[in-house]
Amino acid sequence: MLSRQLSRRRFIGQGSIGILALTIGTRTARSQQAPPAVADLITRQITPFNAEPPLPKLIENWITPVNSFFVRSHGTVPSLDAKELTLTVDGLVERSLTFRLAELLERFPAATTTATITCAGNRRAEFAAIKKVGGVQWDAGAIGNAEWQGVRLVDVLKLAGIKSGARHVWFEGQDEVTEKDNKFPFGGSIPLEKALDESLTGASLLATRMNGKPLTPDHGFPLRTIVPGFIGARSVKWLNRITVADRPSPNHFVADVYKVVPEENAELIAKTTPIYEFMLNSAICVPAAGATVAGHSLNVKGFALTNGTKGRKVQQIDVSADGGMTWKAAKVTSPVRDFCWVLWTADVPVTATTSSLLVRATDSSGEVQPEKCPWNYKGYQFNGWHKINVKQS
Amino acid sequence: MLSRQLSRRRFIGQGSIGILALTIGTRTARSQQAPPAVADLITRQITPFNAEPPLPKLIENWITPVNSFFVRSHGTVPSLDAKELTLTVDGLVERSLTFRLAELLERFPAATTTATITCAGNRRAEFAAIKKVGGVQWDAGAIGNAEWQGVRLVDVLKLAGIKSGARHVWFEGQDEVTEKDNKFPFGGSIPLEKALDESLTGASLLATRMNGKPLTPDHGFPLRTIVPGFIGARSVKWLNRITVADRPSPNHFVADVYKVVPEENAELIAKTTPIYEFMLNSAICVPAAGATVAGHSLNVKGFALTNGTKGRKVQQIDVSADGGMTWKAAKVTSPVRDFCWVLWTADVPVTATTSSLLVRATDSSGEVQPEKCPWNYKGYQFNGWHKINVKQS
Repeated sequence: MLSRQLSRRRFIGQGSIGILALTIGTRTARSQQAPPAVADLITRQITPFNAEPPLPKLIENWITPVNSFFVRSHGTVPSLDAKELTLTVDGLVERSLTFRLAELLERFPAATTTATITCAGNRRAEFAAIKKVGGVQWDAGAIGNAEWQGVRLVDVLKLAGIKSGARHVWFEGQDEVTEKDNKFPFGGSIPLEKALDESLTGASLLATRMNGKPLTPDHGFPLRTIVPGFIGARSVKWLNRITVADRPSPNHFVADVYKVVPEENAELIAKTTPIYEFMLNSAICVPAAGATVAGHSLNVKGFALTNGTKGRKVQQIDVSADGGMTWKAAKVTSPVRDFCWVLWTADVPVTATTSSLLVRATDSSGEVQPEKCPWNYKGYQFNGWHKINVKQS
Repeated sequence: MLSRQLSRRRFIGQGSIGILALTIGTRTARSQQAPPAVADLITRQITPFNAEPPLPKLIENWITPVNSFFVRSHGTVPSLDAKELTLTVDGLVERSLTFRLAELLERFPAATTTATITCAGNRRAEFAAIKKVGGVQWDAGAIGNAEWQGVRLVDVLKLAGIKSGARHVWFEGQDEVTEKDNKFPFGGSIPLEKALDESLTGASLLATRMNGKPLTPDHGFPLRTIVPGFIGARSVKWLNRITVADRPSPNHFVADVYKVVPEENAELIAKTTPIYEFMLNSAICVPAAGATVAGHSLNVKGFALTNGTKGRKVQQIDVSADGGMTWKAAKVTSPVRDFCWVLWTADVPVTATTSSLLVRATDSSGEVQPEKCPWNYKGYQFNGWHKINVKQS
C-alpha cells in the first residue's frame, strides 16, 4: 500500500507524475523505482537513497526547509500508515508499554526542539586527499537544522520505569537493510544519561513533525527519534521499538558501523566505543567551489557547529584567502543555540594570488578545528579546515 | 496607528466592515468603538471588553480555538506594532536588558506549553445565590486551554542574572486602565520560585503565539506572559516590562484587586496575600442550563481542573441528577496534562423528578470540590459544586 504521504511528496518536486513505487508489504523497494523527485538535493546514491543539497542552497536558511535537508537511508524507505504504527517500550523497565501513535501524543505533553542533524560521514569525500574510503561520498551538505516536535523520550521512559542496571537505550526502525544477505532494520543506541536529559535544548524527542509539518517518508514518517548533539545515526527513523538495556545495541549500525577505526579488524571494532556526539566543524558554502573571484574583497558564507557537548558555543570563525597566513573573523548571522549550527558571513580581502578559501571554527572551551583530520578507515567525523579552490577571472 | 492584526481580526467575525478604531498614540480606546466582532463569545462588558463563550461551545475542543476563548480586559486593548515593541528586564538583576521582539525570539530557544488560563472571577455570577458581588458577572466560561509558544521566562531571567534578595517577578503591560481618575497599565506579579521553574509543563513563557498563530490583540499581541497553574491575571498581556523585586508588585491588580477578602477594608486587603494558583473546579457545559430532559438517561459533558499545584491530576468527576443523593462517575475524554483542564462525559440516569444536574471533582491528593463556596467580597475562586437547572418535557 502506497501511503498518501509518500505519493504526495513524490509528486510535488518536479511534477514527476508517473513515478510509482513498487511496494512489498508495507515497504517501498527504492531499488525498483526512479529516484525521488526532490528538487534541491544532489543524489549521492540511488539505492539506498542518499542525497545532500548544494552548499549555497544549504545555508539559505538557519532552519533548513525539508526540500533542502539531506537524506540518509541505509535500506528501504518504508511506506507506513500512521494509524497502524505501534511503539513498544521494553527491556530493563518496570512495565513494558505499547502505544499507538495517537495514544503517545495524547499521553505525553508536546515538546519542541530545534536541533541540527548531521551525518557522521559528512565531508567524507575530503578523506580522498589522503586515501579514499568507502561509503557515501558526502560533500559538506549532509547536515541540516530543523524544528522538531513530538514528545520527550524521558517522559516515556519515566512512565515505563527504568530498572537498576540500565545503561543504554536502543532504538529500532522499520526500514529493511540488506547486509551480506541478511535483512534487518536500522538501529541506534544512546547512553541512558543522554536519554534522561530533561533540559529544553537537550531533551531527546520522539518526533512526529519537522518544521511544523508531519515528517516526510524520507525523514522517518510517522515517528523518529531526535537526539540533540549526536550524529544523525542515533536519530532513528521509522521508529517502532525502544529497548532499555545494560549495554549498547547489538544492531550492526551501533556494533560495527559508526566507529572510528584505523582498519577493518573485527576484534578492534568490537572494542571501539560507538560514535555518539558530533564534532566541532565548519564549512564554506558561498562561493561554491571553483567560483571565479575578482576585485579586492569577497563575501564568504557558511556554517559552523560545536561538538555535541551541552553549553559549548561557537566562539570564533576565521576565514582565510591566503592559505592560512592571515585570517578574517566572520560574523554570526543566525541564532545561537545549544546543539544547533550557526551561519556566518565574512568579507575577506582577496588578491591576484588568491586560489583558495579556508575556514576554521573555535568553540567556547578554546578548542580549535584542526588543520588536518586524521584518516580513519570508515571515513567519519572529518573536521579539518574546510578548503575550497577558486579561480582568478 | 491601527495594526494590521487588529483590523484583520475585527473584520472577520461578522462582516462588520466600517467599524474603525479611534486610536490615541499607539492605543485603541475601546470605549469609542462598537464591541468587537467575535462570533462565539457572549459579551459581559463592552468597556473594558469582557466576554466568554456559551458553555456548550466552550468544550467542543480540548484546545480552545481563539474565537471561543474568553477575553478579559481591564482597560484599553492596545494596538501595537510588533516591530516597535521593546521588552525591558530590570530591578534586582545583575544587568538590565532591553530586547526588541525579534531579538528576544532569536536570543532564546523556542518553547511550547499547553496551559489552561482561567479568570479568578470565573463563576462569579453564582455568588449571587448568597449575596451579589460587583465585577464582571461571569458564568463558567472564563476559562480556556491553548498551546502557547514563545521563550521561557527563566532563560531571560538567567541572562539578566538574579541578585540576592529577589523574591518576586513583576510584569507590566501596555494597556491603559482607568481607576478613580488614575491611568496606568495592568500589572501582575509571581513569586520568583515559580518564575524559575524549568520543567516542560511548569515553565512560564513570554509568549508570542497561541495555537500556532500570532496572538490576537485581545489576547496580548505581540507579547504576553503565560504562567501555568496561576489565575489569568498573572499572565499579563501586551507585556513590555519585567522587574525583579523583593516584594510583590505594587500594581493595583496585585496589591488591591485579586485577593480573597470578606469586606472592603484597606488595612485587611494590604495584609492579604494575592491569589496566585487557580483552584480545583468543574462545570457542566452540556446540556445548557434550562434544557429539557426526557427519557431515562442523559448525556452530560463538561470540564474539570485541579488547582495549580504541579503533579495534581483530576482523579474523579461525579455527576448527579438527583440533587447529590447518587453520583455517576464521568469518563475523561481528553488528554491529561499538568496545568490543563480535562474534558469529561457521563451518561446519567434521569427520572421524572430530575430538576437539576450537579458535578464535583476530586483530585489525586484526595481534595474534593466543596458543595458550597464561602462568599467573598470581590467574588473570586468560586468552586462549589456546579449546578444547572433542567426542565421536564
